[in-house]
Amino acid sequence: LHTEIDRARLREVARVRVLVADTDTTGIVYHASYLRYLELARVELIRAAGLPYRVLEAAGLALPLTDIAVRYRAPAKHDDFMTIEAGLVLLTRVRVAFQYVVAIAPGDRHGLDARLELLTAETRHACVRLADGRPERLPAPVYELLESCYRNAGGVRGAGP
Amino acid sequence: LHTEIDRARLREVARVRVLVADTDTTGIVYHASYLRYLELARVELIRAAGLPYRVLEAAGLALPLTDIAVRYRAPAKHDDFMTIEAGLVLLTRVRVAFQYVVAIAPGDRHGLDARLELLTAETRHACVRLADGRPERLPAPVYELLESCYRNAGGVRGAGP
Amino acid sequence: LHTEIDRARLREVARVRVLVADTDTTGIVYHASYLRYLELARVELIRAAGLPYRVLEAAGLALPLTDIAVRYRAPAKHDDFMTIEAGLVLLTRVRVAFQYVVAIAPGDRHGLDARLELLTAETRHACVRLADGRPERLPAPVYELLESCYRNAGGVRGAGP
Amino acid sequence: LHTEIDRARLREVARVRVLVADTDTTGIVYHASYLRYLELARVELIRAAGLPYRVLEAAGLALPLTDIAVRYRAPAKHDDFMTIEAGLVLLTRVRVAFQYVVAIAPGDRHGLDARLELLTAETRHACVRLADGRPERLPAPVYELLESCYRNAGGVRGAGP
Repeated sequence: LHTEIDRARLREVARVRVLVADTDTTGIVYHASYLRYLELARVELIRAAGLPYRVLEAAGLALPLTDIAVRYRAPAKHDDFMTIEAGLVLLTRVRVAFQYVVAIAPGDRHGLDARLELLTAETRHACVRLADGRPERLPAPVYELLESCYRNAGGVRGAGP
Repeated sequence: LHTEIDRARLREVARVRVLVADTDTTGIVYHASYLRYLELARVELIRAAGLPYRVLEAAGLALPLTDIAVRYRAPAKHDDFMTIEAGLVLLTRVRVAFQYVVAIAPGDRHGLDARLELLTAETRHACVRLADGRPERLPAPVYELLESCYRNAGGVRGAGP
Repeated sequence: LHTEIDRARLREVARVRVLVADTDTTGIVYHASYLRYLELARVELIRAAGLPYRVLEAAGLALPLTDIAVRYRAPAKHDDFMTIEAGLVLLTRVRVAFQYVVAIAPGDRHGLDARLELLTAETRHACVRLADGRPERLPAPVYELLESCYRNAGGVRGAGP
Repeated sequence: LHTEIDRARLREVARVRVLVADTDTTGIVYHASYLRYLELARVELIRAAGLPYRVLEAAGLALPLTDIAVRYRAPAKHDDFMTIEAGLVLLTRVRVAFQYVVAIAPGDRHGLDARLELLTAETRHACVRLADGRPERLPAPVYELLESCYRNAGGVRGAGP
């Protein structure tokens, strides 16, 4: 998990401002606060692929996390304006994985003259039934939308393992 | 709502340590973090009255907040050890209200030589059906447990408006 | 506090999508999740008035909450798209207060054919020094920016009590 | 990171009840909610070793996360009572790592007749100065308390890489 970020698959999907709510007493963003932003990023990524998350819910399905790995590279502070990139990096009939880079662009923090990467991360998800949490195959229309998302990002590569 | 705390109805229900997760960049506990502690307090108050919250859920009911009012009186900091008092202050067939005091006892913060009140609060709740959010009367056994909780705290008073 | 919302002072300041992170097991947005959105709203309101919050911090000041009151009127759900209105409703040399309405516009939830108000709220804040939490007067340039924000919203009224 | 949990190093350090605040609309605990519990666990682990976290802060130091890896194995639900085990698994003059298991004991969920592991996790931390976030060596007294914590858990092994 997450030994290497597949940057060719990432695209910018969200820009968010750090709130006081996200910070902690050491003066930086609390590590768990970023997980909310990763959710925002993957939801917007698949929405852009034509798949609002509520379509999954309406089908009685969910994509709960099975694994997460995050490397924290530099701290963010209150009022920083962050850019979040995300990409689908694995797609099978029953599992998906996303990778993420959260960064601050040069113009988005006073005095910052080069892009600053805050963290890289990967999340893995299983498709399950909402009713009982049992594994379920992705419905064909959902799989096809995700496959299109995977293909568009990755150019010539196939649909993953 | 919350013009006056009915202290005779309050009892100590929980003691919690402030985590970094609860704090913000100004060095104190973030105001919204306390709402989690108020939930803990009212859940433990009614559990002590013989009513685990899951009994309500099993009956297909919930007690969502309709109103909250909080007065923040003094800040708490990381690693403070807080005492939470809670009491049922209103009980009807369709509504309940709780009041709360969060404080630090003298021995629980280095250098503190008198009890420090951090906040006072009140929450009001309606009984609704989980399935559709429609109002519902409290089932008789639930009402009776809450009434006992109300009576035990309040001495000679009746069961409220 | 919050007996009446001064709607003439409110303007739309943010639109946000509900994440799974904001919801709870009863299927609706957890009551405390909204407090993060209220922070976002007041920060964007004063930024629009020319006052990024970091200017306050750079001056060694903060505006911690002293009071909050929220009335929850209707539940929001995952993937709802919410509109947040905020306004400055009180301004003195040492205190400010904001009011808020969170709503869903007709086009922003499937099947919704009229604007749905989710909650109304008010927050009160004191100006304090970050270093020791002691009360402090708002610096004149900050006060003037807030006064301009207050006046522009309120038309003919004065600058508050 | 986290390929294998060093169970001999873990000890039970906390028991916590799942609040509605921790859950999400899919009916289970939201994945990020567990990170708060992991903080609680490592803080209580080192407090039991004689090192309250505020001693670090008073020395102008912090131990921010550099990496986290979590494997989610089974979902928890509202009102579950969870047991958290934690252990120090790596200790150098500038870095520490902890591992964790969160589980439900048979008596702590209705109908559960065997221990249910919810997740395993590892966090890595660097020692930094609070003032500027620069790396710093652990002060000798702090290192010695952590070394004692490491040794007591691990029996005959040395103090790590």
